[in-house]
Amino acid sequence: MKSKKVAIIGASGYSGEVLVQLLLNHPHAELVAVTSRQNAGQTLAQVFPKFASHPKSKSLRFSDPKAELLSKQADVVFLALPHGVAAEYAVPLLNAGCVVIDLSADFRLKSPEIYKDFYAHDHPAPDLLKRAVYGLPEIYRDEIKKSLLIASPGCYPTSILLPVIPLLKAGLVKPAGIIADSLSGVSGAGRKAEVDYLFCECNESVRPYGVPKHRHLSEIEEQLSFAAGAKVTIQFTPHLIPVNRGILTTLYLAPEKPTDAEKISACYKKAYDGEPFVRLLEGKALPDTKNVVGTNVCEIAWRLDPRTGRLIVMSAEDNLVKGASGQAVQSMNILCGWPETAGLV
Amino acid sequence: MKSKKVAIIGASGYSGEVLVQLLLNHPHAELVAVTSRQNAGQTLAQVFPKFASHPKSKSLRFSDPKAELLSKQADVVFLALPHGVAAEYAVPLLNAGCVVIDLSADFRLKSPEIYKDFYAHDHPAPDLLKRAVYGLPEIYRDEIKKSLLIASPGCYPTSILLPVIPLLKAGLVKPAGIIADSLSGVSGAGRKAEVDYLFCECNESVRPYGVPKHRHLSEIEEQLSFAAGAKVTIQFTPHLIPVNRGILTTLYLAPEKPTDAEKISACYKKAYDGEPFVRLLEGKALPDTKNVVGTNVCEIAWRLDPRTGRLIVMSAEDNLVKGASGQAVQSMNILCGWPETAGLV
Amino acid sequence: MKSKKVAIIGASGYSGEVLVQLLLNHPHAELVAVTSRQNAGQTLAQVFPKFASHPKSKSLRFSDPKAELLSKQADVVFLALPHGVAAEYAVPLLNAGCVVIDLSADFRLKSPEIYKDFYAHDHPAPDLLKRAVYGLPEIYRDEIKKSLLIASPGCYPTSILLPVIPLLKAGLVKPAGIIADSLSGVSGAGRKAEVDYLFCECNESVRPYGVPKHRHLSEIEEQLSFAAGAKVTIQFTPHLIPVNRGILTTLYLAPEKPTDAEKISACYKKAYDGEPFVRLLEGKALPDTKNVVGTNVCEIAWRLDPRTGRLIVMSAEDNLVKGASGQAVQSMNILCGWPETAGLV
Amino acid sequence: MKSKKVAIIGASGYSGEVLVQLLLNHPHAELVAVTSRQNAGQTLAQVFPKFASHPKSKSLRFSDPKAELLSKQADVVFLALPHGVAAEYAVPLLNAGCVVIDLSADFRLKSPEIYKDFYAHDHPAPDLLKRAVYGLPEIYRDEIKKSLLIASPGCYPTSILLPVIPLLKAGLVKPAGIIADSLSGVSGAGRKAEVDYLFCECNESVRPYGVPKHRHLSEIEEQLSFAAGAKVTIQFTPHLIPVNRGILTTLYLAPEKPTDAEKISACYKKAYDGEPFVRLLEGKALPDTKNVVGTNVCEIAWRLDPRTGRLIVMSAEDNLVKGASGQAVQSMNILCGWPETAGLV
Repeated sequence: MKSKKVAIIGASGYSGEVLVQLLLNHPHAELVAVTSRQNAGQTLAQVFPKFASHPKSKSLRFSDPKAELLSKQADVVFLALPHGVAAEYAVPLLNAGCVVIDLSADFRLKSPEIYKDFYAHDHPAPDLLKRAVYGLPEIYRDEIKKSLLIASPGCYPTSILLPVIPLLKAGLVKPAGIIADSLSGVSGAGRKAEVDYLFCECNESVRPYGVPKHRHLSEIEEQLSFAAGAKVTIQFTPHLIPVNRGILTTLYLAPEKPTDAEKISACYKKAYDGEPFVRLLEGKALPDTKNVVGTNVCEIAWRLDPRTGRLIVMSAEDNLVKGASGQAVQSMNILCGWPETAGLV
Repeated sequence: MKSKKVAIIGASGYSGEVLVQLLLNHPHAELVAVTSRQNAGQTLAQVFPKFASHPKSKSLRFSDPKAELLSKQADVVFLALPHGVAAEYAVPLLNAGCVVIDLSADFRLKSPEIYKDFYAHDHPAPDLLKRAVYGLPEIYRDEIKKSLLIASPGCYPTSILLPVIPLLKAGLVKPAGIIADSLSGVSGAGRKAEVDYLFCECNESVRPYGVPKHRHLSEIEEQLSFAAGAKVTIQFTPHLIPVNRGILTTLYLAPEKPTDAEKISACYKKAYDGEPFVRLLEGKALPDTKNVVGTNVCEIAWRLDPRTGRLIVMSAEDNLVKGASGQAVQSMNILCGWPETAGLV
Repeated sequence: MKSKKVAIIGASGYSGEVLVQLLLNHPHAELVAVTSRQNAGQTLAQVFPKFASHPKSKSLRFSDPKAELLSKQADVVFLALPHGVAAEYAVPLLNAGCVVIDLSADFRLKSPEIYKDFYAHDHPAPDLLKRAVYGLPEIYRDEIKKSLLIASPGCYPTSILLPVIPLLKAGLVKPAGIIADSLSGVSGAGRKAEVDYLFCECNESVRPYGVPKHRHLSEIEEQLSFAAGAKVTIQFTPHLIPVNRGILTTLYLAPEKPTDAEKISACYKKAYDGEPFVRLLEGKALPDTKNVVGTNVCEIAWRLDPRTGRLIVMSAEDNLVKGASGQAVQSMNILCGWPETAGLV
Repeated sequence: MKSKKVAIIGASGYSGEVLVQLLLNHPHAELVAVTSRQNAGQTLAQVFPKFASHPKSKSLRFSDPKAELLSKQADVVFLALPHGVAAEYAVPLLNAGCVVIDLSADFRLKSPEIYKDFYAHDHPAPDLLKRAVYGLPEIYRDEIKKSLLIASPGCYPTSILLPVIPLLKAGLVKPAGIIADSLSGVSGAGRKAEVDYLFCECNESVRPYGVPKHRHLSEIEEQLSFAAGAKVTIQFTPHLIPVNRGILTTLYLAPEKPTDAEKISACYKKAYDGEPFVRLLEGKALPDTKNVVGTNVCEIAWRLDPRTGRLIVMSAEDNLVKGASGQAVQSMNILCGWPETAGLV
């Protein structure tokens, strides 16, 4: 299988670090460049002691991010940058013929209007929104194969879309009134020097935030609307919990018929039975982040409540793997024609 | 102020331990007896090294729980026993003239039928259900003053009832479709030697459990039904999170009018402005368990979501204090005519 | 008992926060001013939501720290400032007749030379070093009574000095070759926005730091030298562990005679039996930070190892209470003639 | 490369679980049997939901441990059993021609007398002690190649022996007076339903235990004595800290000459420069468990203290990988003639 050269722009944050780990050990991708303004000049081993045993860790040095140079070094470029910055790099890289896999929110929406509503400024490259494919492989596998610009989904959106899209597509739940209550580990906030994310501020603490209008709502609702064939507005409450990694989402849905247990079961089996990274739990098992952390797997379980007529769906994923870097690698594998599970567990 | 002698039956669990702490330092109550089958014969200092600096810790010894003896020693007896066991002790203690404050679920329901539905056996002392007062002081203060049997509320129920009852009583939210999504620290599971609650099974883990029919639903729904004047059925999903203490509940409610912000604000102020142990958060503040752990305070904040028309109410409490032992002491203070905040912060 | 007015300069850090908590609830001290450059203008309730239920939390506002003004408002001023800054405030406050209790390292040493060796610059107010009393009440109680300037000990030093000083004074251990291996919770690093102390950098991590010459060595060795009557140089290795609060120190000492168990026992009993805040553990008990966190207690246990002839002494304390703010309040109580345990548990 | 069939006896504990993970993903070993009395009959997926995505997880079922049967199924058998039980299985397996890799302490000592001193009973199979090789590959690689019975080292011993043995062999440190102060994550206590290891008993807690005579001392001292060519007695203090995995050991050693920095550096480089699983830290870096957890790497750093003349050596490892299952797989790789790093990171 033909290998490719890959680069990571913005490799010093938490999702950048996981990308480095996955790409250092990938059977077909060769990591040739990592960038970071603040760590420029340092080796991988210096910035991430945990990779110091890897043979490349002492030769590979962080550089300043320069699109022109990177486009000559790499076939595939991952952008692990803050929202708003990614677009600056995507344009020249695409023009130079690179595949771009963006982990930021910059290209996740189709609608520039929704972008403006949630991000409070015009989209910097609205033309690219049409070219970008939303990198959720279980839903857009065929489109990913043919795209050169992948907008890899957010962590919360992944934990919500995977459980809900099949039900909406099958018409088994009502598009109105969906509630997503999510719990995220602290790495979701990024490696930022802010008092709010200090150990003593997060440990022995649980708190909601961004209530009621979190930015991730824009991509969640756009994707759910596509699935439902109608505009979907949901309730979404994120909470910060004292774990490093992991998202647990509990969804409250209204089934079209509260007695449709068999149809729901069949719908999920049809959607995910062959999927390597979606695990439908059976029997009494319920999702637990500790069973997915470090893997690219999203666990899903559901219960129909005969007392309320509601459908409760629960999902668990690693926010930095299936919710970010693992999923981005999964898209790369598809796009490059490699086995979808290459370099992933 | 006249002091009283108090005893704790079942003082070796987590809520028993907090009760010991509160009563050792109470200005009017004198802790005269603590019982525990497994620790009988040992001093307080031996079982709980953290209390070893208290003068009583070396003289006060755990004894076997014997109602007859305790009724002679104490005026007020707290029962911190597993559900189903408390009733056995309550009857002889009440007959002997003691005040009984029960932290178990045994006397929290008014309806023996609901008890049987959730606990799968007949109630052992249905007559006492009528005599018991549900020990939620903010709602039943007057009844607590006159009662000799207090059924102190559960931890999850307290975090749900305090935010919802005023809204239901004022007719500001619809009684149908209420959802309570709760996150609890591990002490809620008790000091039991079970693999599921080992450090390594809970740390770096988040998981739902007891979905969809948790036993606490029975008392939550009965109390909400009283407030609404109609039968209320809710959705309740508890989750286990890796903190020692604390419950965070996020409630999803349907306001009668989505524009009633001022009425909701006024309703909460009227209900709780003078309350020492309910803190209405203002401005951008949202509840955080770290701000209430170790105190008897329940924090409440709310947001009306103009996008969905829903009312989101969030509460935080210490499951072992306001959710258990602190609230029980608060009831004792009321019942004994002491300042309601005596011995509590 | 006559009450006093107290102020805290630098009240927004972790030890400042604990000072606020202790002083808000102190029976004889009245907290009249709190300062913080970054929070100036905000109320206590806004900066610390956990104190919002205290009646003073909405009237007491953070101000800019101005010594002149504070000296008119307060009888006792606590300095919870970074090292090097405290001296600037101490001089005018002392001149204005205030009692100053300094939680920084600025006045802990007697020798300006040692100060320069460890802090790399001349001491800003060497004359005050003579006036200052090292605020370790169990050792300097009489001096504290008569002093106007208290240099409250550091967290690591307290955990080392309390177990070692009595043994050195009694000549039961050799002054040479002492090793102190200490484990500290993350609050010891202060409420600073630094990547190293983010939740994800500390959680699931254990690491030594500052090896082999930590600044706290200067005051530890000076105090041990006073006790031994000869220069003492020790080995000290601090480690960062993922708890909010607590220090556990394990000391390796060479007893003069490895068979002196009874003398060691008698020595500790003589030193600490009446002390409210030192707890000598008996039997098989060993120190555990969870038994002292939130209290002003230092736990001590020891073992003579017949295999090696060494004496192992272990201590546990809350770094923010006995290791900082609680101990400072204890000194205030002594100095003001109040019961030493007032406002402390 | 010829693959082998492997079995795990006692696969439901923490080190058993890591063994399962490593062997499921090993390129040359095929996991054919897992045993567990309490889980007999259940599939891997049922007992360990985290492995449920592996193709073998639904076909491989836990069985009762029967040596005769297993010896027919497997070429290599790992024993992840409590101390004392392993010997019962080792004898029949060896007789049937299996390779046995034992993770318990049963065969780690050469001296049956030392065994009796520390374990308080006669060794059940003293003849096997001679045949067993102590499975520390960096020290006994050649012996491992030729052995059929590997006694895989304990977690604490590995973290102490790797840093100390080269120094003792080179005569750079004195064999007398060695102190090892170790901090271990809670998984070291095993998956046992005991109150002491509940989340709430370990979280926000740090405590020493087993002071001063921990059983691991026997194998540590025997191995150090071999290296020194003389009897070595050390001081060892283990502490329990609230992380799932990881051991951090701080060693206090007396260098023969306190100015031997270059010799120490050269000694470590000679010993470990080509070793895939020992990482010598350079510059200011110090070991941190978070950089080794999940890997088979042991990090080592050292400092000579000019003030005390002592040598401080610090090591970090994952107690379940390099300290247990990873090291056992490393031995298997050597013994089977596979690349030593096969299936390990």
